[in-house]
Amino acid sequence: MRHAIATVSLSGTLPEKLEAVAAAGFDGVEIFENDLLYFDGSPRDVRRIVADLGMEVSLFQPFRDFEGCRRDRLQQNLDRAERKFDLMGELGTDRILVCSSVSPDVIRDDEVLIEDLARLAERAARRGIVIGYEALAWGRYVNSYRHAWKLVKAVDHPNLGVLLDSFHTLSIDDDLSLIQAIPAEKIAFVQLADAPRMAMDVLEWSRHHRCFPGQGDFDLAGFVAPIMATGYQGWLSLEVFNDGFRAAPTGRTAADGLRSLLYLEEKTGQRLAASARATFTRPPQAATEALFQPPAVSAYDGIEFLEFAVDGAAAARLGEWFRQLGFRVAGTHRSKDVTLFRHGAINLILNAEPDSFAREHFAAHGPSLCALALRVDDAERAAERARQFRYELFAGRVGPNERRIPAVRAPDGSLVYLVDQQPNAASIYESDFELRADAGDAAPALLTRIDYVALGIAVEELDNWIMFFRSSFGFDTGAPLTLPDPYGLVRSRAVRSTDGSVHVPLMTSTDRDTAVSRLLRTYRGSGLQRIVLATDDIFAAVRAARDNGVAILDIPRNYYDDLDARYALEPGFLARMAEANVLYDRDESGGEFLHAYTALCEERFFFELTERRGGYTQHGAVNAAVRMAALVQARRRAVAGPD
Amino acid sequence: MRHAIATVSLSGTLPEKLEAVAAAGFDGVEIFENDLLYFDGSPRDVRRIVADLGMEVSLFQPFRDFEGCRRDRLQQNLDRAERKFDLMGELGTDRILVCSSVSPDVIRDDEVLIEDLARLAERAARRGIVIGYEALAWGRYVNSYRHAWKLVKAVDHPNLGVLLDSFHTLSIDDDLSLIQAIPAEKIAFVQLADAPRMAMDVLEWSRHHRCFPGQGDFDLAGFVAPIMATGYQGWLSLEVFNDGFRAAPTGRTAADGLRSLLYLEEKTGQRLAASARATFTRPPQAATEALFQPPAVSAYDGIEFLEFAVDGAAAARLGEWFRQLGFRVAGTHRSKDVTLFRHGAINLILNAEPDSFAREHFAAHGPSLCALALRVDDAERAAERARQFRYELFAGRVGPNERRIPAVRAPDGSLVYLVDQQPNAASIYESDFELRADAGDAAPALLTRIDYVALGIAVEELDNWIMFFRSSFGFDTGAPLTLPDPYGLVRSRAVRSTDGSVHVPLMTSTDRDTAVSRLLRTYRGSGLQRIVLATDDIFAAVRAARDNGVAILDIPRNYYDDLDARYALEPGFLARMAEANVLYDRDESGGEFLHAYTALCEERFFFELTERRGGYTQHGAVNAAVRMAALVQARRRAVAGPD
Repeated sequence: MRHAIATVSLSGTLPEKLEAVAAAGFDGVEIFENDLLYFDGSPRDVRRIVADLGMEVSLFQPFRDFEGCRRDRLQQNLDRAERKFDLMGELGTDRILVCSSVSPDVIRDDEVLIEDLARLAERAARRGIVIGYEALAWGRYVNSYRHAWKLVKAVDHPNLGVLLDSFHTLSIDDDLSLIQAIPAEKIAFVQLADAPRMAMDVLEWSRHHRCFPGQGDFDLAGFVAPIMATGYQGWLSLEVFNDGFRAAPTGRTAADGLRSLLYLEEKTGQRLAASARATFTRPPQAATEALFQPPAVSAYDGIEFLEFAVDGAAAARLGEWFRQLGFRVAGTHRSKDVTLFRHGAINLILNAEPDSFAREHFAAHGPSLCALALRVDDAERAAERARQFRYELFAGRVGPNERRIPAVRAPDGSLVYLVDQQPNAASIYESDFELRADAGDAAPALLTRIDYVALGIAVEELDNWIMFFRSSFGFDTGAPLTLPDPYGLVRSRAVRSTDGSVHVPLMTSTDRDTAVSRLLRTYRGSGLQRIVLATDDIFAAVRAARDNGVAILDIPRNYYDDLDARYALEPGFLARMAEANVLYDRDESGGEFLHAYTALCEERFFFELTERRGGYTQHGAVNAAVRMAALVQARRRAVAGPD
Repeated sequence: MRHAIATVSLSGTLPEKLEAVAAAGFDGVEIFENDLLYFDGSPRDVRRIVADLGMEVSLFQPFRDFEGCRRDRLQQNLDRAERKFDLMGELGTDRILVCSSVSPDVIRDDEVLIEDLARLAERAARRGIVIGYEALAWGRYVNSYRHAWKLVKAVDHPNLGVLLDSFHTLSIDDDLSLIQAIPAEKIAFVQLADAPRMAMDVLEWSRHHRCFPGQGDFDLAGFVAPIMATGYQGWLSLEVFNDGFRAAPTGRTAADGLRSLLYLEEKTGQRLAASARATFTRPPQAATEALFQPPAVSAYDGIEFLEFAVDGAAAARLGEWFRQLGFRVAGTHRSKDVTLFRHGAINLILNAEPDSFAREHFAAHGPSLCALALRVDDAERAAERARQFRYELFAGRVGPNERRIPAVRAPDGSLVYLVDQQPNAASIYESDFELRADAGDAAPALLTRIDYVALGIAVEELDNWIMFFRSSFGFDTGAPLTLPDPYGLVRSRAVRSTDGSVHVPLMTSTDRDTAVSRLLRTYRGSGLQRIVLATDDIFAAVRAARDNGVAILDIPRNYYDDLDARYALEPGFLARMAEANVLYDRDESGGEFLHAYTALCEERFFFELTERRGGYTQHGAVNAAVRMAALVQARRRAVAGPD
């Protein structure tokens, strides 16, 4: 399909927007009138810039409050249209969006509207222009695509079609079943935007909270599938009014916009394939072929390893933390200054290799997580999928007989490695490391696996990260959480594989002094917030960690009094939790979650130890506020010194 | 009245909150349970801290989902209550908030609820505790104060009263007429919060958007007046859930909280006085006497002068701008390094005096507006009003025979001078300045007055500034505006005297690279955004300024093409505007606004020249986006150098 985006979706001056749109790989651009109005060149200059960038002006918009106006204003409105047609000639576009009137005195009479639209179409025809008539969800009289199509059908003019916009249709939960009855040639244009479900005024919702397909809650594929079933082969164009996008770096937003359309095409193709016979009257063969079809999403099996960028000093400090948590050195890399720590089946890697991606990461962020590795069924396929979603693949230096592990660059330059276990092949550790003879741990492992990791994300990057995990890895997005820190709010949104084996909360905060804001400043960007390690015996794990010198975060006694009031827990159990600073949650079906936090490591991230009982699948978010307050109090005590 | 605030209204740890509440002058504090839960001391520690600060714990809250619960949970709920009563004993408070159940399986039967509440009141009585029963606006069954009062009345127990909360009542536009029928002794507690009117889910609205009385759109005085008419003499307590307050400096927020209660008391007193006979059945004499009654709001007459903090070099640069705009030196201060510039009736002052408040302001912010002077009917009364609202008065050094001008410190440390013209007395200029013989301008003045000034305000200070103008000066607040900058959004909210003679838009932005964000960084805080000067002939004023070397901001030609399409203006007039870079707006009754902007002065603020025709009273906000885009383009050109 041909991809476009409206200039209003991006930040910057008009030339900045156009360059970013072209660089992202779009074929066309909708010129939003205000962007032209503020531009200090002529419409012909815009036409030239767009052509030089190898694109087309797909649409000019909007033209408002035309049809059904007061009769004494009709001539003025037609004159206004002619002026805009002149402008379109200079811009070099043949398509204009006319949106349904919001005027309080619009004439509520289909016959009048049909006459007005026919007159406008006639004038457009003389200039070779096609009108796309769009029903605004808040249109005063016409406010559904069904009504717009009824009028367009009645006018029956080749220069008038409907413009279908996902926001205006899905925000009002409109009936989509009539879409496929519209002949493809009567669909003048298709505009796409997603949005989170919000209980608010639809105009405010539309103006500030739209987002790219896949970033919100709408069923965009359910909207596009019937359009494709009509045989439509025109533009798919993003029109997103979003306060964040207005301020975000133009290039990143544009790149994600294109990805969102590719992602939507994939989903639409799946929808068409799944429901072709049941739902659609015409076979959508040609439509499906026109859609983007990337390699299938991987099957996942948790996190294979975590890799930290360090220098020599940081390696010593982090290594000491790992040792205190029960890890020991399992091997050293054959050709690089890289150390493997292992506890049971958990692998942690310290990368101090000079002249490597890790060293670059260290230079930018200090001691930090520079890579996480996902276990997948087919690493090459997983990487190819990411590449087709236009993410950069990474290939580091590979020594003789070492294995090349496919990797994808995340939005902050860190890596996501993709690891599969090839039949009868050596493991990546066997290929790349000199493993110690005693690498297999003799003692039973107290910690069983990496439960998950959470990342602190700079607010202007959050959408980029969500798009990264959703499109290239096919992850789902959880509901947004708001967590109270003593100095403001922390917002968390998790991405996760559909099987739940990989779960990554993305945490952000715009308030100056929250724990997450401090973290972002310390890293000078996004970075690891916590590593969560699962155990089958939280009390033993906490005791072992403490005995080895790990500082466990102190939890206020009042917390346990309240737990008691809420759950009437067995006194011995409660006392044990209080003694070990273990927090508690219980889900509706009686599943229990016991967890403890360490103090801050490197003034940045921390470890969390978790025990899940009886099928508890959540993450103890209810206790995040206790943790953040305890962290502040620990800091205060550290500043004040010993009592 | 006795004033309290809930700890949840403020940021910080519990001890930080308590100290700020006491410093602000509150008599009591509501302990919100989570704050206690996160605190690493005991409830007795809290009691001691509160007592040491000279306050009381006015309330413990909340206790949820008690009444009408599933019968097999009633005993557990009563036990839970006993545990909280224990806690209250340690905290040293006798009052608890019980909010109406939100449980989906609440029993919808008043008889059951009455029985449950009676049982709870009986247990509370044994401990000397009073229950305040509050109807949440989203309560599953009980969701209005009227229903809560019906139940409380039926229980008829001295240890049970209603807790009236302005948000829960005003958010649902509830009928207030039954309030005054409640006996004062049955009102256990009064909680107050304002909120902006928002078309959104009431729970979300309540949790994130409440604000202090006077900061939102609710008629709080209309809520408190009937409460006072009952003879209620208990607590007036703020309970505000606000995302901004959660992150703002604790002390400033608490101070504004107390001011908001004083302000509300003043408004309530006026309401009672105005409507005593018409509305209230009992004479509210005692009630009115208990309320705060500050000196009356001033009568205003525009801006008398603007004063800038400068050093020698900045004085030369700014002086040159003033001269180019048609000002000339009218005098020098008798005892300080201060220069008066004048054009017609407009006075601008450059203050380069070492060891002065202006020098402090210069040190903190660079060349900047350090004072604005308002013309009032009685300067001493105006200052006394500000003092009673707990703002700091300022008294600078006064030389012999010079006049002491009362001044109030604004939230950023700048001053608002209050100037009256005392009969038969010298003007402040005659008292304090050596005026030049030719100080009265011979040529007719092209610029007639200071139309208004706009300030760029750091986002975390915006509420403080609004409170400052509303309470101490009795200003109104205009509707919030959102203005699109090429790199994000600028939000503007104007404060203005009720007669409209003083109008001050407060502009803020949280996006990194908007014009206002750049301004805030340049000033390292809040500061002047523009000075708007009125003229009766915009074309002559622009010509004169240009002839004197003032750079007028270039406006894109496309803007004029669009103006033409919108208004079909007379071609000669349009061409004249385009030539002079004059922008245009027209109001609904045909009033016209012509205005032009200068380039940036000191890379900070700029001047705007305005001509109002036919009674136009707005401020051309529709053209702000054009200005901000033009500013970016001018910057780009400046960086790129001449073509």
